[in-house]
Amino acid sequence: MQPGRTCLAVILAAGEGTRMKSQRPKVLHQVAGRSLLGHAIAAVSAAGADAVVIVVGPDRPEVAAEAKALLPSAEIVVQAERRGTAHAVLAAREALARGYDDVLVAFADTPLLRPQTYEALRAALAGGAQITALGFEARDPTGYGRMVIEHGELKAIVEHKDASEAERGITLCFAGLMALDGRHALAILEAIGNVNAQNEYYLTEAISIAGSKGLKTVAHVAPESEVQGVNDRAQLAAAEAEFQRRKRLEVMAGGATLIAPETVFFSHDTKIGQDVLIEPNVVFGPGVSVADEAVIHAFSHLEGAEVGPQASVGPYGRLRPGAKLGRKARVGNFVEIKAADLGEGVKVNHLTYIGDASVGADSNIGAGTITCNYDGFLKSRTTIGIGAFVGSNSSLVAPVTIGDGAYIGSGSVITRDVPADALAIGRGRQVEREGWAKSFRAESQEKKKNAAKTKD
Amino acid sequence: MQPGRTCLAVILAAGEGTRMKSQRPKVLHQVAGRSLLGHAIAAVSAAGADAVVIVVGPDRPEVAAEAKALLPSAEIVVQAERRGTAHAVLAAREALARGYDDVLVAFADTPLLRPQTYEALRAALAGGAQITALGFEARDPTGYGRMVIEHGELKAIVEHKDASEAERGITLCFAGLMALDGRHALAILEAIGNVNAQNEYYLTEAISIAGSKGLKTVAHVAPESEVQGVNDRAQLAAAEAEFQRRKRLEVMAGGATLIAPETVFFSHDTKIGQDVLIEPNVVFGPGVSVADEAVIHAFSHLEGAEVGPQASVGPYGRLRPGAKLGRKARVGNFVEIKAADLGEGVKVNHLTYIGDASVGADSNIGAGTITCNYDGFLKSRTTIGIGAFVGSNSSLVAPVTIGDGAYIGSGSVITRDVPADALAIGRGRQVEREGWAKSFRAESQEKKKNAAKTKD
Amino acid sequence: MQPGRTCLAVILAAGEGTRMKSQRPKVLHQVAGRSLLGHAIAAVSAAGADAVVIVVGPDRPEVAAEAKALLPSAEIVVQAERRGTAHAVLAAREALARGYDDVLVAFADTPLLRPQTYEALRAALAGGAQITALGFEARDPTGYGRMVIEHGELKAIVEHKDASEAERGITLCFAGLMALDGRHALAILEAIGNVNAQNEYYLTEAISIAGSKGLKTVAHVAPESEVQGVNDRAQLAAAEAEFQRRKRLEVMAGGATLIAPETVFFSHDTKIGQDVLIEPNVVFGPGVSVADEAVIHAFSHLEGAEVGPQASVGPYGRLRPGAKLGRKARVGNFVEIKAADLGEGVKVNHLTYIGDASVGADSNIGAGTITCNYDGFLKSRTTIGIGAFVGSNSSLVAPVTIGDGAYIGSGSVITRDVPADALAIGRGRQVEREGWAKSFRAESQEKKKNAAKTKD
Repeated sequence: MQPGRTCLAVILAAGEGTRMKSQRPKVLHQVAGRSLLGHAIAAVSAAGADAVVIVVGPDRPEVAAEAKALLPSAEIVVQAERRGTAHAVLAAREALARGYDDVLVAFADTPLLRPQTYEALRAALAGGAQITALGFEARDPTGYGRMVIEHGELKAIVEHKDASEAERGITLCFAGLMALDGRHALAILEAIGNVNAQNEYYLTEAISIAGSKGLKTVAHVAPESEVQGVNDRAQLAAAEAEFQRRKRLEVMAGGATLIAPETVFFSHDTKIGQDVLIEPNVVFGPGVSVADEAVIHAFSHLEGAEVGPQASVGPYGRLRPGAKLGRKARVGNFVEIKAADLGEGVKVNHLTYIGDASVGADSNIGAGTITCNYDGFLKSRTTIGIGAFVGSNSSLVAPVTIGDGAYIGSGSVITRDVPADALAIGRGRQVEREGWAKSFRAESQEKKKNAAKTKD
Repeated sequence: MQPGRTCLAVILAAGEGTRMKSQRPKVLHQVAGRSLLGHAIAAVSAAGADAVVIVVGPDRPEVAAEAKALLPSAEIVVQAERRGTAHAVLAAREALARGYDDVLVAFADTPLLRPQTYEALRAALAGGAQITALGFEARDPTGYGRMVIEHGELKAIVEHKDASEAERGITLCFAGLMALDGRHALAILEAIGNVNAQNEYYLTEAISIAGSKGLKTVAHVAPESEVQGVNDRAQLAAAEAEFQRRKRLEVMAGGATLIAPETVFFSHDTKIGQDVLIEPNVVFGPGVSVADEAVIHAFSHLEGAEVGPQASVGPYGRLRPGAKLGRKARVGNFVEIKAADLGEGVKVNHLTYIGDASVGADSNIGAGTITCNYDGFLKSRTTIGIGAFVGSNSSLVAPVTIGDGAYIGSGSVITRDVPADALAIGRGRQVEREGWAKSFRAESQEKKKNAAKTKD
Repeated sequence: MQPGRTCLAVILAAGEGTRMKSQRPKVLHQVAGRSLLGHAIAAVSAAGADAVVIVVGPDRPEVAAEAKALLPSAEIVVQAERRGTAHAVLAAREALARGYDDVLVAFADTPLLRPQTYEALRAALAGGAQITALGFEARDPTGYGRMVIEHGELKAIVEHKDASEAERGITLCFAGLMALDGRHALAILEAIGNVNAQNEYYLTEAISIAGSKGLKTVAHVAPESEVQGVNDRAQLAAAEAEFQRRKRLEVMAGGATLIAPETVFFSHDTKIGQDVLIEPNVVFGPGVSVADEAVIHAFSHLEGAEVGPQASVGPYGRLRPGAKLGRKARVGNFVEIKAADLGEGVKVNHLTYIGDASVGADSNIGAGTITCNYDGFLKSRTTIGIGAFVGSNSSLVAPVTIGDGAYIGSGSVITRDVPADALAIGRGRQVEREGWAKSFRAESQEKKKNAAKTKD
């Protein structure tokens, strides 16, 4: 943040993204459960943007909708024709004219740029520069614009094809983003021309125009990994990998154990407590928090869920939105929990579906239990009291209430409320027929033999 | 393909593979769900081989059987004694004598060689060479034969141990494969002698023999990753990794999103549509196709299955051979589908086994449903109509038909056909015993206490 | 081992491990299912230590308890104040005074050090040196003590901050461990002073003291990967990764196929037979052995289990402690086995929980079967005979015995023993109500419409 300075962020989101080969606009593809656009909005917001303008292409209502959903105050402007980056920024002319101290020009397809980097661009403006352009040290600078630095100032950005032999030796390359002093931004942008092979208006030209006006331009350098854009699916996967790498280090630094960090996938907003143990192969969708000393066993999948302290999930535990596990609650293998509160010490250990339910503390839900929460039209709730015991393979037909301390016999279908401390059973009686299996085997073997013969 | 030229491929599959430490012949080990031999057969076939001879060791009927299963026209010849690569190729003497334009000598244990590479070897013959030898730029050439190139022609292949200091500086190494002009192949091969330390007949010698006959020999260079052979389990895993790397890039280039490509394992024949989303940790066995815009969630396992457009599988979805999901069908967590058609919009969301069945459009299969398709001897079919609702934890005892729009009460065992639009229920009635659970708890606690005392 | 020489190992386990950010002592964190301390104890034991002293910090009863649990003969001594490594070793003064031939000084937080390395340190003593210090070639030696070697002897260990320009060029660095000749160890350790900035007693000084006494000191060099210590969660994950890398290579060298080795996680004690096939994404907890030619399919999780020859587990198979699979037994998807013996050829293919049970050879357990082994207080056993058939979705309420060749109808709740060759059924009778579903749909749609209206 730059206290005392107002800031406008213009996020360019009009790219067509044809290399994604997708029906979906590029900037709506996701990294760590958040759209590329969402990452850009979050980063400029965290860097103190007071107003955010999203420049979208024509006929892209989904992009505008996503922007509004994420940031209701976002202003959407349309770049009707694709005539270069400077032209795109000028689609935000109205906002630019409102006179902010700082203008951040950001891209919607660089999801790895950290707020700190946007802040650093602004800090240089606060320190007296009129433009801060973002650069990176390129492993392979081929094709990038080279940043010519003299006496600490950025003198020019030279396109690869126009660069001299000496300039091609420069490895500091332009990442495309910049911050501009709001008092000059509009004038600079309007001075940019389109006298070039493509007849497009390039933001890069802002540097030389600022120079000709005697304004000060500086470079800020970020790691190459941070400025990578997303143009195809392989780059999307690379951005995801870099995001995950960062997040895993952050979670471990916070005092959690990841046995195999490379196999754990977080969402952008996952919260992990101290002394949490996460086994290999765990996937976190959005909206998960895991409290201290909880254990997430292998092959678990969590989204929109809250895991209490010392609780345990999995292996093969699936928590869906609205799952809330109390202290020391335990969700075991092949168990799905959805929109359900499990109280302290509740055990749901095997092959169970608990949906639209609440389960009181210390209750034990037997293997194979199903809350029948859907009748084909409506969802209904199941309420289980404290210290209840639900026998294995039971079906609880919602809406239904199982009282505190009640006991459900194994294999029961429960359709009526069960009073506290009562036993409820709903199943057939066992009958036997001696010798039946022996005869059945004999007959079946005969049948199989005959069937085989017929085929011959 | 080289139009107008006939081609014989001789695949050497007689290696013993002792370093695999396996009861199974080396070339029957698999990469991406296809045997090493299968990869070689597929590649030479795709490169236009009109006839394929497989040279196998003695007493290896499994290798011959696999070759015949994959390519019924394959000719199997036995190399009775192991006397070198040239000797092995000559086991195909009969086919060589038939007079093909091109003779490809391939190995059954280099599963990463692409058809394009075999085609390039042939193209050089079509261009006037009599031998094309395959080379690669070795990161570490130690131990490999060095390829001496002069004026664009391959002059010699010098064994590491025979190489001069200067020759050891050469990094272009011989990969072992070659293509020979069919008019000269037999003569060249028969001229190869065994005057060397091992008394073996080496294919490498073909180069100097061709030179002495005034024939033209050239090298074609492939990436080192492509020519890697498989001799032990670690190399098998490395080949698998390289195959997966390629396939993942190919799938992403086609417009699918792989959130974590390194955790998705394809089969050699997996087909993935555009805008398909594949979450982390998915395994594809052979014979799977996934249509456009389908989603494969984490921890899913598919083989022999067809996933329709906009359908959704998992997390923890298992599709076995014969599973076919219609448009927008949904298979959820801990669900297994085998030899079953799910119509458009069908939902099978939780903890279910559907085997040997067909499910009509828009039907909803409740959690915990099991199609009881096996009586210990025979498998029978379950037919579910359009728009049916099967309540949770139901058992459908096949053969059985559930009519269109029928409704099965939760926890039912269905053994008879259910008419369209009917309700069917088959379960016990619920009864309660007030206070039973309280007494049971008191007694059980007492028992536990006594049991503990007895131990003391 | 050094035959004829006695050995004392002093393991320093008093570090606070604050960078772990954990309530748990650092050395109790695990790699491959064994505590860091456990790795150190196992390695020095395998290197022939006759006595092991563990130096723990004050108020760390858990560390002492773990040591005693792993090695009942371990002696625990407390380092009351943290005054340097030499001071820590001297906490074992009593044992040192007993006069062993070799004294190994080891750390509890270097879990990757192999027994062979400890043996090599001892071998140098047997060969005439009085101290062997462990070194490694550091990729980046910054911060490490440099080992100055002259004429094959270690002349000094120079701290980074005290090193000359030339000494900083040395890449051989001290790993912190050493072996000392037991006749001199106590005298050398007691001669170490604390005249330094921290006023601590450093083991490093042993080298110069030995030199001043005319004793011979040598260096032994181990790979850097082996000497890495664990100080934070990222280093813990790195140690786990290195351990797994080694174990995977070892398993593959033994003749097992790992399709994707990087996705298979072993425990320190996992035993894998020849021609075992392990698909991607498998996790082994402690105590698992897998016999020859068994297959472990993807997404399986095994601990404390024994898998027989040619048996098959998964995908999504979970074997918990006490699971024992006979030859050719098959545990399929979403199946949990706990404390249960499955005989030869038993099939438990889908969605089943078998706990506290034995299943006779060739029995078939249908999908969705649950052994109801827990009544809320006690666990009871289920016994299934040879060649029995348990229909799908059955509940077997323990204690219960199913006789040889018995047949359980699908969806049954079995509460009484079933004689051999008998059929047992316990389920409700099916009834239908024609047209009910049609009316229900009409009513439900009406209700939904009204509910929607009310909201407006």
